[in-house]
Amino acid sequence: MATPHEPKQDRSRATRQRLLEATIDCLAEMGWAAATVAVVAERAGVSRGAAQHHFPTREDLITGALEYMFDTRMDQAKAEALTIAGVAEGAGRTQAVVAGLVESYTSPLFKAALQVWTHAAADPVLRERIVPLEAKFGRIAHRRAVEALGVDDSDPVAHHLVQATLDLARGLGLADVLTDDSARRKEIVQQWSATLHSALTAPR
Amino acid sequence: MATPHEPKQDRSRATRQRLLEATIDCLAEMGWAAATVAVVAERAGVSRGAAQHHFPTREDLITGALEYMFDTRMDQAKAEALTIAGVAEGAGRTQAVVAGLVESYTSPLFKAALQVWTHAAADPVLRERIVPLEAKFGRIAHRRAVEALGVDDSDPVAHHLVQATLDLARGLGLADVLTDDSARRKEIVQQWSATLHSALTAPR
Repeated sequence: MATPHEPKQDRSRATRQRLLEATIDCLAEMGWAAATVAVVAERAGVSRGAAQHHFPTREDLITGALEYMFDTRMDQAKAEALTIAGVAEGAGRTQAVVAGLVESYTSPLFKAALQVWTHAAADPVLRERIVPLEAKFGRIAHRRAVEALGVDDSDPVAHHLVQATLDLARGLGLADVLTDDSARRKEIVQQWSATLHSALTAPR
Repeated sequence: MATPHEPKQDRSRATRQRLLEATIDCLAEMGWAAATVAVVAERAGVSRGAAQHHFPTREDLITGALEYMFDTRMDQAKAEALTIAGVAEGAGRTQAVVAGLVESYTSPLFKAALQVWTHAAADPVLRERIVPLEAKFGRIAHRRAVEALGVDDSDPVAHHLVQATLDLARGLGLADVLTDDSARRKEIVQQWSATLHSALTAPR
């Protein structure tokens, strides 16, 4: 929170961040149509004028939120990788990697991103902004998973199984949007981790 | 198309079907907000009055489209199962089943359903209508996949791997919404099919 001793620049940065976090919460909980500058400002406890100073249009707010989501997902993936690095290699490590990946696709961040992706499906301008960010995120998420699993990405079997694991995680994320799918998901993660580990360590 | 000799009841049914198909096309191509009774009527080549006779409100139209999507997905799954039954058992059958499942998640029907699911995430009334339909569809899709693969669903490994395959298909469907992902998807389907087949046929 802002204090009288906080420099003006820091206060401005904190306000901007509060607005972006409120945008993600609004998207995840109330959907695309509700995430307007006015609603987000109210949720963030920021005056409408201050919100409009940071984000003059809704388009600016959504674009800002997209970049913020991207950065947050990167930070989370980095933190996840550090946690995983502490797990001994073997089947347990594989399960920790798969579980971590899958959980990241059930967060409010994923639910907010889903609102933006779905809207962008019919909005070429928004789509053009998202596609390069998603491509970059996909490459980095893949690289981090390869590193965490300790596999050789030049092996096509390993490469495609890591990709499939990311696709599975996305599908499990989508299955969690309308109902709490956590009990079923836990069993899928366990089974896929075991199958993946066998396939990655099988002699070829 | 209606002809002067067509009974009135058949004409009415054909009009209703044209409206529902236009709703799915509008949702898939133009997104949630565009799929109104007026836009759908124009696309279907039906007068607004006739459209409102069938679907007095947008809610009626969306609910009708949901049920129609459900029936169409069921018919497609049934037709798919008949095709698969002609493929000799073995790795080729497994790949045909996985490919068929995955393709069904990249159709305009999936893209239309995604618009409805995403909107329903923040609309409890719509969600309440969808959840039982989706649960029923999920059970039937699972049963059909089990039959097509010729596996024993009481075996927890087979049960969870079939579930994971449906989740993977959903994730690959979502990956196809913003860009044409078909080339990458083909490789994932091949690898997943091979890994799935080994896991399903491994002695245990």
